[in-house]
Amino acid sequence: MSNRTESYLIGLVGDGVMPSLSPHMHEREGDVQGVRYLYRPVDLHELDLPATAVGDLLQSAYRMGFNGLNITHPCKQLVLQHLDEIAPDAERLGAVNTVVIQDGRFIGHNTDFSGFAAALASGLPDARLDRVVQLGAGGAGSAVAYALLTAGVQTLELVDMDPARCAERAAELAGFFPDRTVTARTTAELPLLMPAADGLVHCTPVGMAAHPGTPLDMALVEPRHWVADIVYRPIETELVRESRAKGCQVLDGGRMAVGQAADAFRIFTGLEPDAERMRAHFLELIAAEEVAV
Amino acid sequence: MSNRTESYLIGLVGDGVMPSLSPHMHEREGDVQGVRYLYRPVDLHELDLPATAVGDLLQSAYRMGFNGLNITHPCKQLVLQHLDEIAPDAERLGAVNTVVIQDGRFIGHNTDFSGFAAALASGLPDARLDRVVQLGAGGAGSAVAYALLTAGVQTLELVDMDPARCAERAAELAGFFPDRTVTARTTAELPLLMPAADGLVHCTPVGMAAHPGTPLDMALVEPRHWVADIVYRPIETELVRESRAKGCQVLDGGRMAVGQAADAFRIFTGLEPDAERMRAHFLELIAAEEVAV
Repeated sequence: MSNRTESYLIGLVGDGVMPSLSPHMHEREGDVQGVRYLYRPVDLHELDLPATAVGDLLQSAYRMGFNGLNITHPCKQLVLQHLDEIAPDAERLGAVNTVVIQDGRFIGHNTDFSGFAAALASGLPDARLDRVVQLGAGGAGSAVAYALLTAGVQTLELVDMDPARCAERAAELAGFFPDRTVTARTTAELPLLMPAADGLVHCTPVGMAAHPGTPLDMALVEPRHWVADIVYRPIETELVRESRAKGCQVLDGGRMAVGQAADAFRIFTGLEPDAERMRAHFLELIAAEEVAV
Repeated sequence: MSNRTESYLIGLVGDGVMPSLSPHMHEREGDVQGVRYLYRPVDLHELDLPATAVGDLLQSAYRMGFNGLNITHPCKQLVLQHLDEIAPDAERLGAVNTVVIQDGRFIGHNTDFSGFAAALASGLPDARLDRVVQLGAGGAGSAVAYALLTAGVQTLELVDMDPARCAERAAELAGFFPDRTVTARTTAELPLLMPAADGLVHCTPVGMAAHPGTPLDMALVEPRHWVADIVYRPIETELVRESRAKGCQVLDGGRMAVGQAADAFRIFTGLEPDAERMRAHFLELIAAEEVAV
């Protein structure tokens, strides 16, 4: 019908998603672009559903007219078996955070990795990428490491509390990028690794309100390092603040959050989001939250 | 959160609901009132689901964050067993077309009857209601008859092709309104009934594109009769056009469609809709459709 303008109905499936800023970011960008956009959190905890319900929720979303879903912890791997098609990068990562629903088919993407890549490109455009130290090799860490290698990092030093997981991730990534070096490292090696590195990327929960502090001895961070954090609550983590005070170029965690949302918006709508506008809105939302706390 | 403005996600469950104008009417009224509003058709036919799936769809709607559903053919009775609470009028009618979802509870209403009552009050405010002939005693007809008796009709002559159904409905309505007269009649009796009637209400499919013509011999319609149709595609049925040409006061089917939607909007949002504005929009939509056809 000529008077039916396109509209977008999107959901976010995961555990504890009610405080997510994604609904606001997506809806505001939809508003500015003049499309009807509604984004609903679907919280497993509030619904008293197990993570394995993600397949049923995909069906519910399809039946109820959703155009897509974002998927977060603990469903990013579980969702894979319910998809009809997976983008190659998401398949390699073994994790999907964005599902497009088209004619009853479910198509998976991963905008965690592409969002971090976009964040790095826009926030640290001149960063040297020869040698990078990354702290944390969990789910988010895997996506970030993949993005770093995609962006051209030659040597990636992967550090994690869990040596077995770290070794596994490093081997997997090295397999995808055979011309690069990806090495599993321990925290004890940081005093040797940092002096040789161009930049530091942080992917653990340290710096969040519940985990205060910095994820490494700040004496190891030099002004010539660039420093990227993926924690964004607060937006000014101790790592970000102290690194900036030293004179480091810094990428805060909001850049990845916005990059992830912007890429999902593009995938859901086919419209080009304005990432800088979305970042401005994101910072506004975070500031309002921090005042409210 | 202070920056989370209220938003409304509504669905319409039924068979063949894709051409419904409800999404447009609701969304436009939400826009004018400054609330985010998205209304999705959920078509059993497109989803290849039986009418009995309505219970599952209620659960899906709850999980996916819907605020409510409109329910139409063939689910208005089937939905009853899945509700936690039913408004008294809807319970008497044995039919629900509006379900509010609140904290996982499903509360049923019927705005078919209240929508017709509102249409009658706004479109024919001076109509004499002593004696009315109604053609058609199916699902919509039952709601309309209930509305007519609620509005004060003293004697209702109910005419239907199916004498058994007609007698059953008449008895049921007479039971709800013991001080009124509700009588099951046949088409053959119309030449006796019309001269004694104040008005005529039409609730069969005659006049729709697939069922052209008028539902009775137009010689029986006199200028002193008021005439109400519930068919609204086309908005100018032969009955409406010929009755108006005779000088009758006329209520077109759009009034009930708008009244039904306006009442549902009020129930879903708690906001007072502007029924005249919704009617203007409805007429615009119908006109666009009729041009398109």
